[in-house]
Amino acid sequence: MDPDAVSKAFVEHYYSTFDANRPGLANLYQDSSMLTFEGQKIQGSQAITAKLNSLPFQQCQHHISTVDCQPSGTGGMLVFVSGTLQLAGEQHALKFSQMFHLMPTPQQSFYVQNDIFRLNYA
Amino acid sequence: MDPDAVSKAFVEHYYSTFDANRPGLANLYQDSSMLTFEGQKIQGSQAITAKLNSLPFQQCQHHISTVDCQPSGTGGMLVFVSGTLQLAGEQHALKFSQMFHLMPTPQQSFYVQNDIFRLNYA
Repeated sequence: MDPDAVSKAFVEHYYSTFDANRPGLANLYQDSSMLTFEGQKIQGSQAITAKLNSLPFQQCQHHISTVDCQPSGTGGMLVFVSGTLQLAGEQHALKFSQMFHLMPTPQQSFYVQNDIFRLNYA
Repeated sequence: MDPDAVSKAFVEHYYSTFDANRPGLANLYQDSSMLTFEGQKIQGSQAITAKLNSLPFQQCQHHISTVDCQPSGTGGMLVFVSGTLQLAGEQHALKFSQMFHLMPTPQQSFYVQNDIFRLNYA
């Protein structure tokens, strides 16, 4: 397993799901998962997907600039992303950074244990 | 132990050491530590501090905009920082994001297991 390839594949899957089928993100979180969204702390798949689905924009497109990854030392993988978020009808894209801590599932896949998102207001 | 207070204290210590006494950062890393600096992967306290000390600017000042933290689920703590980096003699500050995975030491302190740094070129 090439960690760089896994993290790039995860990032592509995550943001294409976010942009095309946001409720589908529920599969990537579990009850222990944590999201900090612009400083707001949310725990558990259900609450996290409720938050993501209630964001005040319906259509958006993420463009990824960089993806970095490291093993977290505990069987997990840290993925650090920077990019831009284009909201429908808005002229300027917003810069963002986001980090994920992916943990393995028994099905040889990953779920998101930690997720921290920040806009950078560039 | 309040994780938010610990992470804020760590962040203040880290960047004030970086700005005033960069070689002092060596104490915060161990042989297992990993740094990804603008995509370049470096491992081990010695190589990491050599990299940080060889950056092509001598004087700089970090200003912190946001600090988010979450337990990593393994006794560690994830700290996610956004801010600006002012280089001496430069007119404009650079935006950056950085994440740390802190792991506890037997001395009830923390070391940096994972460190990923990216400039956002705002």
